[in-house]
Amino acid sequence: MNIYRFEENPLITPLDVKPLNEGYEVIGAFNAGVAKYKNETLLLLRVAERPVSEVEDIIKAPVYDVKTGKLNTISLSKDDERYSFADPRMISDKENMDGFVYLTSLSYIRIARSEDGHHFTIDDDPFLFPFNEYQTFGIEDARCTQIGDKYYVNFTSVSPVGVCDSLIVTEDFKSFKSLGNIFAPDNKDVLIFPEKINGRYYALHRPVSSNLGKMDMWIASSPDLQSWGNHKHLLNTSEEDWDNGRVGGGLVPLKTEKGWLEIYHGATKDNRYCMGALLLDLENPAKVIAKSEKPIMMPLLPYEKEGFFGEVVFGCGAVVEGDKLTMYYGVADTSMAGCEMSISDILNELY
Amino acid sequence: MNIYRFEENPLITPLDVKPLNEGYEVIGAFNAGVAKYKNETLLLLRVAERPVSEVEDIIKAPVYDVKTGKLNTISLSKDDERYSFADPRMISDKENMDGFVYLTSLSYIRIARSEDGHHFTIDDDPFLFPFNEYQTFGIEDARCTQIGDKYYVNFTSVSPVGVCDSLIVTEDFKSFKSLGNIFAPDNKDVLIFPEKINGRYYALHRPVSSNLGKMDMWIASSPDLQSWGNHKHLLNTSEEDWDNGRVGGGLVPLKTEKGWLEIYHGATKDNRYCMGALLLDLENPAKVIAKSEKPIMMPLLPYEKEGFFGEVVFGCGAVVEGDKLTMYYGVADTSMAGCEMSISDILNELY
Repeated sequence: MNIYRFEENPLITPLDVKPLNEGYEVIGAFNAGVAKYKNETLLLLRVAERPVSEVEDIIKAPVYDVKTGKLNTISLSKDDERYSFADPRMISDKENMDGFVYLTSLSYIRIARSEDGHHFTIDDDPFLFPFNEYQTFGIEDARCTQIGDKYYVNFTSVSPVGVCDSLIVTEDFKSFKSLGNIFAPDNKDVLIFPEKINGRYYALHRPVSSNLGKMDMWIASSPDLQSWGNHKHLLNTSEEDWDNGRVGGGLVPLKTEKGWLEIYHGATKDNRYCMGALLLDLENPAKVIAKSEKPIMMPLLPYEKEGFFGEVVFGCGAVVEGDKLTMYYGVADTSMAGCEMSISDILNELY
Repeated sequence: MNIYRFEENPLITPLDVKPLNEGYEVIGAFNAGVAKYKNETLLLLRVAERPVSEVEDIIKAPVYDVKTGKLNTISLSKDDERYSFADPRMISDKENMDGFVYLTSLSYIRIARSEDGHHFTIDDDPFLFPFNEYQTFGIEDARCTQIGDKYYVNFTSVSPVGVCDSLIVTEDFKSFKSLGNIFAPDNKDVLIFPEKINGRYYALHRPVSSNLGKMDMWIASSPDLQSWGNHKHLLNTSEEDWDNGRVGGGLVPLKTEKGWLEIYHGATKDNRYCMGALLLDLENPAKVIAKSEKPIMMPLLPYEKEGFFGEVVFGCGAVVEGDKLTMYYGVADTSMAGCEMSISDILNELY
């Protein structure tokens, strides 16, 4: 399948983002949700900042303090035998290597704006900085669904009680109203459909069944966007070499004549992330009509293969004009890139 | 605290229950939800049946087949190096010892009826037998909340895609209407409050954060009992020697003058289950007013300490008359017992 990657890629790198916090460095500007607002394309950038460590065998971890509204920095010795430092993204208890005790960076959401969709300027202030006790380890991977004049932004909230998905609504990308945690931990990769279907809202989500060792895609419905039920299993990981570890929603589902088109991510057990495509029934999106057997996009170029956490393409949003899908996607958990695809080309890849 | 355990305990044992399935034996009749219906006390018994294995080194596992409506039996050799058979309740992949691949028994719900609350007769037919693809490994641990003339019964649905919580409604304990999966996997121990609070329904639930290694109690609210949101963390495990592994709701929350009284279970990391008590604000049940520092009840008597899975008291329901709480509780994942407590005594245990 033809994919046109922007010549300017990567569009935004950590070097383009000034850290908010003194003594911190920006190590990631990636996995952005996307909105068309007035005449601009907005990227709801996930900015990851980490405390600078002057001493090589000290690992620092940021924790947001709800009471003071400030970041605290935890320092741990690399010799500390309780912990594993093998994954650069986290500090794990050696007795629970599937999980983590601290993250090595704190993420929050900052807006990058563009009129041409290729050249972005980044706001100085954050749009969403941790604002409650479910976000003391950060806010990650925003997705934005426009319904009428309202923009619903959901994101992962990370704290010592778990990884859950939260929702806010905004009309101006300045102020917002919190609509609470919409999916209980652990859950990520929630994508709200842009319109009601037979009177109900729908969302893709990615719960974790630790009991069954599953990280599959599910679908739920809602009367009001805040309360979700009728949970149904939608998509398994496969035995293939690109999505045998986990699958999760990517872009906001896109209505086509043939069905709801969902561009999602699949990862291997060793965390190589590709993008696949899925077609869901227009009237009953819990029914899968077709899917891509192979990824429609995989990490190929140096900026996709190398970075803070390499071998990752991770799309969270797009702009659609006719048959042209402009996807903005995180690369290597580091930077943002853009590409163009033909929607009819994608539909032709599905079986 | 004084607890009067019934002299007839255990009230129901596996020997009292005739297996439904040919070639199967009943190994558990336990963890029953409780309802007052007409002049009877109903126990919504979790009956666990397992295929009889004639050969010692063969372990059998039942799987419900949605298409045929029948049970299939998987046979595995104890020498199979892929699996661990260490926990009698399950067969685990050696690479994911926190979870399971099969259960060694299939549970479903059968009703036991009594006029005096001490002597029960057990229906021949099941009330809830697996009826969809989320229940191919069984239906476990029903709880029953009466709202007006309707009885809402929620339970754990177990299948290869995860462990989630499902809801049905009945008015006669014969027919029922399915209201779908109300909490995504993994989630258990859902307790629906018996009335709306400030216009919304509330439920306790117990999601699992494998990332953070947490099995804590959460609370959510709903406009319609089917769709749940506004998820809030309610109760941590503690460092104490009775609830450092997991906590989860037990009985349907009981309205008292001082607050909503919740009798819940706490378990140690090696799975000894006790009951504790929690007091929640009447107007805002997401606010904990007080809790018992020590368990109000722990496994003491032989039928509580010994069985299929020993050292377990696990209450799922009760009948209340004035200050008297008659709790029915599962013992040792094997049988049912009953006891009486004074509600004012319990409230006096809380700090």
